Amino acid sequence: MNPGAGLRDGAAIATAGPVRVIGTGLLGASLGLALARHGVPVQLADASPAASALARDLGAGDLVATADAMPEPALVVVAVPPDVTSDAVAEALRAHPGAVVTDVASVKAVVLAELRAQRERGDLIGSDLARYVGSHPMAGRERSGAAAADPDLFASRPWVIAPHEDSSSAAELAVRTLAVDVGGIPVRMAAGEHDEAVAVVSHVPQVVASLTASLLTDTPTEALGLAGQGLRDVTRIAASDPRLWSAILVGNAGAVAARLARVREEIDTLVAALERAAAEGPLTPGAMAAASAVVRRGNDGVARIPGKHGGVRRTYAEVTVLVPDEPGALGRLFAQVGELDVNIEDFEMEHAPRQRVGLAMLSVMPDAATALEEGLTARGWRVVVA
Amino acid sequence: MNPGAGLRDGAAIATAGPVRVIGTGLLGASLGLALARHGVPVQLADASPAASALARDLGAGDLVATADAMPEPALVVVAVPPDVTSDAVAEALRAHPGAVVTDVASVKAVVLAELRAQRERGDLIGSDLARYVGSHPMAGRERSGAAAADPDLFASRPWVIAPHEDSSSAAELAVRTLAVDVGGIPVRMAAGEHDEAVAVVSHVPQVVASLTASLLTDTPTEALGLAGQGLRDVTRIAASDPRLWSAILVGNAGAVAARLARVREEIDTLVAALERAAAEGPLTPGAMAAASAVVRRGNDGVARIPGKHGGVRRTYAEVTVLVPDEPGALGRLFAQVGELDVNIEDFEMEHAPRQRVGLAMLSVMPDAATALEEGLTARGWRVVVA
Repeated sequence: MNPGAGLRDGAAIATAGPVRVIGTGLLGASLGLALARHGVPVQLADASPAASALARDLGAGDLVATADAMPEPALVVVAVPPDVTSDAVAEALRAHPGAVVTDVASVKAVVLAELRAQRERGDLIGSDLARYVGSHPMAGRERSGAAAADPDLFASRPWVIAPHEDSSSAAELAVRTLAVDVGGIPVRMAAGEHDEAVAVVSHVPQVVASLTASLLTDTPTEALGLAGQGLRDVTRIAASDPRLWSAILVGNAGAVAARLARVREEIDTLVAALERAAAEGPLTPGAMAAASAVVRRGNDGVARIPGKHGGVRRTYAEVTVLVPDEPGALGRLFAQVGELDVNIEDFEMEHAPRQRVGLAMLSVMPDAATALEEGLTARGWRVVVA
Repeated sequence: MNPGAGLRDGAAIATAGPVRVIGTGLLGASLGLALARHGVPVQLADASPAASALARDLGAGDLVATADAMPEPALVVVAVPPDVTSDAVAEALRAHPGAVVTDVASVKAVVLAELRAQRERGDLIGSDLARYVGSHPMAGRERSGAAAADPDLFASRPWVIAPHEDSSSAAELAVRTLAVDVGGIPVRMAAGEHDEAVAVVSHVPQVVASLTASLLTDTPTEALGLAGQGLRDVTRIAASDPRLWSAILVGNAGAVAARLARVREEIDTLVAALERAAAEGPLTPGAMAAASAVVRRGNDGVARIPGKHGGVRRTYAEVTVLVPDEPGALGRLFAQVGELDVNIEDFEMEHAPRQRVGLAMLSVMPDAATALEEGLTARGWRVVVA
């Protein structure tokens, strides 16, 4: 049985090629791979010839440079960093007067504003903007570049489509079709609405992760030895690319600054309360209330994040199992979970420092937890249901 | 074969009982379970009779209330919230003049300072403090209470032991022995040193997670639909208990306030740069540099977090596999990984909204990635090596 077969085959591709991909980093190369897999002709261009050659070698399409007689693209996808996106989009609109043009930058309003400024200056003609619809696949990873490309990068991820007052419905449909063809879930949003949304769900989390990790630069090594899963989770995305992220943050400067200013206000209030407590003792009036309010509001906010399958976050039972760190141990565990016919809803692995053992935390529907616990215990696993 | 057998059996227990556990929440009940499993007599006490009865029913020990003729404890472990810890420790020192007393609160300096104040007031006699050595097992979870207790909670986790100028080496040894007996890894640190360390690796991450999650309370539902793994990771611990965490933050007020003040300064600088960029455009001098500096310092900090087995974070190859969301799918995957004789170093599961498919990300040693990719592909999985 092929568990992924339903995803790979059978889906008809509606995107009319050729598709020209400008910028062959992670997103551009992944898109090329996804389209080329379905036989859509892809034309690859990048300011770095080495980058586009790598993408070609990976199977993401053909190089533009070698094909003077290349047919005109029906669709151009600009996949360059946010700060150079609008210029690349304008150039594509001028160079390919019959093509629909989209971009995949993480910020949308600034790109649209810059394109409108170009039209006002006469660098674009009036009808050009009808062929442009910006977009943003919510698909990234800490690694960048074509080497990290993946034709399934967009599978099951939201892909924001941002039409505007001048865009044609035909252009919007072409971009939407592209998103669906590579497995994304199209979500229609105005550029400004998109930028406000990603400021909260992506850009501010990046900043706070980076700032929290920054504190570790001068923390003694012994202190770092106390780090647990909480710190690791909060700071995981702090490993992201500074070049890309500075362009994103500056490209969404207004929305990000407004949210960060709110965070700063909350920190101000808390720091003032804690400084009073440090000076006057922990029972200083207001200190406990200020600290408690911060944590309670956090409880309320995190409960609103949609869970698996887009529903409200479900409460699973968690079954924790000690797993020796050796080849096949997780395999044995999951094979035996499979024998018990229990579906794992979520899975986390925790590793303690300096020990060759891990804690596997299996999330299951509450009514399956007891059977799983008993079945694994009977099979000799060290297991606990919380 | 019993994969956990080496952990459960064979380890000699050196802790001399009886051990009295005061406070039967998550930590107290887990400790009782861990000791009772090895036959150490445990005496349970809690301000809430229902809480201690639950812990007894779970097998964590005997109730103090029912045992007037109970033998004097050799060791008392105070496991109550930080703000009531010093009073409970002082009471235990007075009530059990032959016992060593420790506590497991997440803050250490304030407890010690309050005990010294009690001695100055004459509420403790001079030699009492020789029998007190504070400690802090780095083992928590988002859930609290005896119902979440787990005898393996301390397994392979650091357990800070904080002797002080008045403590005896016999008392320190007793606490250290307790930590080792329940599977913890003892780490010796002065109280102040501990508090500075946990401010950075635990308390500030809790605050920034809570503040980031707070922003979601008034975020539109459509925006939340764009949430990805980054937001989920950053805000996971925002689900923590406000009662416990307000006591922790206020109990470590000085160290937390100092770190938060640094975060606030960095936010100030970034907000000022972003506000200039919002007003004057993204190419405003200094804006990109300010944003880039934040992300770069975050890169440097996160790289210092120790990886698995206490070493420097290793770079693994990541193999991503699409997994249909059905019973046995993960079991099949791991069984086949086991057949390929590849050790999974780490594992993450990502779920996209509204789709019944997940992305399993398997971290393996780089030289194992190609074999794993080819083996799984040959077995029909949809798989990509980044």
